Amino acid sequence: MRSRIALLSLAASSCLQAQPTEGLTARQIIERIQEHVGVTWNNNTVDTFKAGDPDTPITGVATTMMATYDVLVRSAAAGKNLIITHEPTFYSHLDRTEALEKANDAVWAEKERFIKEHHLVVWRFHDHWHLRRPDGIMTGVVRALEWQKFQSASNPSLFVVPEITVEQLAEQMKQRLGIHVLRIVAYPNMKVTKVGLLPGAAGTERHRQMLERDDVEVLAIGEVPEWETIEYVADAVAEGKHKALILLGHIPSEQPGMDYCAEWLKTFINEVPVEFVPTREPFLLAK
Amino acid sequence: MRSRIALLSLAASSCLQAQPTEGLTARQIIERIQEHVGVTWNNNTVDTFKAGDPDTPITGVATTMMATYDVLVRSAAAGKNLIITHEPTFYSHLDRTEALEKANDAVWAEKERFIKEHHLVVWRFHDHWHLRRPDGIMTGVVRALEWQKFQSASNPSLFVVPEITVEQLAEQMKQRLGIHVLRIVAYPNMKVTKVGLLPGAAGTERHRQMLERDDVEVLAIGEVPEWETIEYVADAVAEGKHKALILLGHIPSEQPGMDYCAEWLKTFINEVPVEFVPTREPFLLAK
Repeated sequence: MRSRIALLSLAASSCLQAQPTEGLTARQIIERIQEHVGVTWNNNTVDTFKAGDPDTPITGVATTMMATYDVLVRSAAAGKNLIITHEPTFYSHLDRTEALEKANDAVWAEKERFIKEHHLVVWRFHDHWHLRRPDGIMTGVVRALEWQKFQSASNPSLFVVPEITVEQLAEQMKQRLGIHVLRIVAYPNMKVTKVGLLPGAAGTERHRQMLERDDVEVLAIGEVPEWETIEYVADAVAEGKHKALILLGHIPSEQPGMDYCAEWLKTFINEVPVEFVPTREPFLLAK
Repeated sequence: MRSRIALLSLAASSCLQAQPTEGLTARQIIERIQEHVGVTWNNNTVDTFKAGDPDTPITGVATTMMATYDVLVRSAAAGKNLIITHEPTFYSHLDRTEALEKANDAVWAEKERFIKEHHLVVWRFHDHWHLRRPDGIMTGVVRALEWQKFQSASNPSLFVVPEITVEQLAEQMKQRLGIHVLRIVAYPNMKVTKVGLLPGAAGTERHRQMLERDDVEVLAIGEVPEWETIEYVADAVAEGKHKALILLGHIPSEQPGMDYCAEWLKTFINEVPVEFVPTREPFLLAK
């Protein structure tokens, strides 16, 4: 793994030499996004610059699910110095770095160093991409699942699929979203047709409201603490209720929405290349 | 699964007939715990009654990690009507039921009905079991891992084990804690000797402080959101740092501490039987 990263870092260094001194800046690209997103910009948002100088001229744009170090290395190697990320860069929802700085944290410091050295700019696109109608994340995920024809016209989180067991449904989602580790809380042979989908970490209140509906037999989500929705569905299953939970993992549950984001950006950004850089699923399973 | 529960419910119903009208009440047992736990009782705590009447005469005590419906059924079937749980009963840290009541939530209602019908009392033992010195959860977990001889005298969360790869260490923990689904964020062949252990959901701040230490190469935890410690360790691994994360799952990461709790209770509760009732790990893996 280290030798691969070393090679990519070399590639990134050579891209650095091509860094332009004029052209579109990160700030100008974000302003263009704000004009096109189709919802009034709310300044009380996490959709802000997280690292780098917003006035940096941009050679290319990478969209991604989570601006991990690995994503930054691959983006820089591909000549993309504006990284548009759905999830945090610095390990908390608000990307606060004070505690990391104070502790002189080595993991954070190397990430900051890499960003500076490669003139990267990181901007988060979370709230407003979800607020767009239809929700930008949901559009990408439903397309990746090939579930457009099953989606409710009145509630885009609801689907009616041909009868299938929870286990088979989980396997289908695992394959179509390219997931390595997918967990279920379920009686796996239970047959379902009515599916709820809340990618990411929508929160247990929204999960419960979906699971209370008669038109939701199985709910697929990204992640949630074990003592919240997971215990709730474990209870529902033990009570013999016709309910089940599929835990896709946060990254694969929303990732196709950032692939779609790259496509959408290309409809109004022509000056520089735009590319989706997938975030790796972090988990391996122990035997 | 349903037929098993039906049988257990019948068994539980027959126990109900033996319910005594005198003897130790739940309240008296909890007072005895407060006298013996060895730390000053802090009234700003989640360690309170969650369901049932505290003045119910108790036929037996069950300790468990999480008072799921399945645990309640098995406890009642075994004649234990006081359930001492480490984690929540009603799907949130504070066990607030207002929203469940308002929504007339069917999963919650069935759990409440079962508790009432079987005269169960549920009490949470979280904060003070951790505050006990040594921490009651940690004592049980370290014993289950057979790591007593590796534990630091000055910091009970630190261990020095014989050299082992992260993958092998994860497999050892999986086997000794009886875990079905164990995930790692790591270069699996990395060799380690210095292990940090923070069972449960200690929070990303405490995780990071452990991972920043030179005497922690791999940290084993229960659970954490993906955009916090998980992204942090994914970055550390990508940067080539000698760090790794083992995600045991919340329930198995702390469960042996409630087995130990039953043992400890028996040293000062002789009037009624005390038994550890394991909480099932909720997850199955999709193929």
